[in-house]
Amino acid sequence: MTAGRFITLEGGEGAGKTTQSVLLAEALMARGVPVLRTREPGGSPGAELLRGILLGGTVDWSARAETLLHFAARAEHVAKTIQPALEAGTWVICDRFFDSTMAYQGYGQGADRGFIAEQTRLLGVAPALTLVLDVGEAVAVQRMRQRGGDADRYERLDAAFHDRVRRGFREIAAAAPERCVLLDASGDIQAVHTAIMTAVWTRLGPDQSTDRPGLHQPQT
Amino acid sequence: MTAGRFITLEGGEGAGKTTQSVLLAEALMARGVPVLRTREPGGSPGAELLRGILLGGTVDWSARAETLLHFAARAEHVAKTIQPALEAGTWVICDRFFDSTMAYQGYGQGADRGFIAEQTRLLGVAPALTLVLDVGEAVAVQRMRQRGGDADRYERLDAAFHDRVRRGFREIAAAAPERCVLLDASGDIQAVHTAIMTAVWTRLGPDQSTDRPGLHQPQT
Repeated sequence: MTAGRFITLEGGEGAGKTTQSVLLAEALMARGVPVLRTREPGGSPGAELLRGILLGGTVDWSARAETLLHFAARAEHVAKTIQPALEAGTWVICDRFFDSTMAYQGYGQGADRGFIAEQTRLLGVAPALTLVLDVGEAVAVQRMRQRGGDADRYERLDAAFHDRVRRGFREIAAAAPERCVLLDASGDIQAVHTAIMTAVWTRLGPDQSTDRPGLHQPQT
Repeated sequence: MTAGRFITLEGGEGAGKTTQSVLLAEALMARGVPVLRTREPGGSPGAELLRGILLGGTVDWSARAETLLHFAARAEHVAKTIQPALEAGTWVICDRFFDSTMAYQGYGQGADRGFIAEQTRLLGVAPALTLVLDVGEAVAVQRMRQRGGDADRYERLDAAFHDRVRRGFREIAAAAPERCVLLDASGDIQAVHTAIMTAVWTRLGPDQSTDRPGLHQPQT
């Protein structure tokens, strides 16, 4: 049996990650590819418990403890959800993964980026393809307002924070071109979806299958 | 102001860590040394929250997630409790620290010892002195029965597990003689206390104060 492929969607609030991961999953399933959609923080019972602790905001964690909690949830998510699916031949589409920890905690909140990079290396698992959805502040704010509902802890932070996060995602994508594709996600939904499908088939299409395993060691 | 010293007590269940840490704290305070007694997992509000998650047993965590949760609790404990006390000149006596993660998860449960060693290195903080209390199974079982109360998750594990943990602590002490003192803790309370005080004054006495800072980088 062929192992599944591991694809992550990254980007700030309002970039359209959830919408695009649904469309990507539907397009793959329409082609007969088994797909599991998941998200971080969370994605397994233990990781969801930690998601509640991280996003609930009852403890003002030290930066290192917060980074370690994200990686604890991620290790659990990989062990219980992602790895078993990939081994069963299912493609996994994950909304946020380790790049979000680097962009939000590292670039956004000023946590130690070297420490986050070390934890990323120690995780031992990396996506085969990361789609980094990039939008300007005006589009992001408009989409967040349309979405409505309660803003979580990250969404309550200010514009300068979101700007640092956006710069972080762009630098991460530029530093790992073999894994990441930076996409302009300010266009309409269908145009972004088309760009994503092009990236997926170019990077992970049948011709590439022997070259790009679903899981590989991070190249840091 | 002189920085405080960081002392940890390690060893299996029934080794007498709590009894001896109380006696050590009293002896230091009687000599005018300000002392904070703390313990792991726990020791700060966020770390106590994680202690409840780890010891409660509601989630069967993957080995890596469990290791990362212990180090998240530890990072929080260091940032919020241990480091501020040491900087204020207080000596910190901690019941269990990173050696317990290596002994219980690494030696006892078979978790990846290299991963635990990497996390220990990344923590960036190590005790100036670690007292490893060693007792045979018969003494440990007798003391645990005398103590009564509910057995937690670790105490419900079997004799072979506790034997691996004991071997782990002995190997850790042998590998880090500049930090650790292995003590026979099967004798009576006062005899063990006397041996501890001798170790503390030999290693951390006034003559050594310029050589042995309260916190130093782990020598791994």
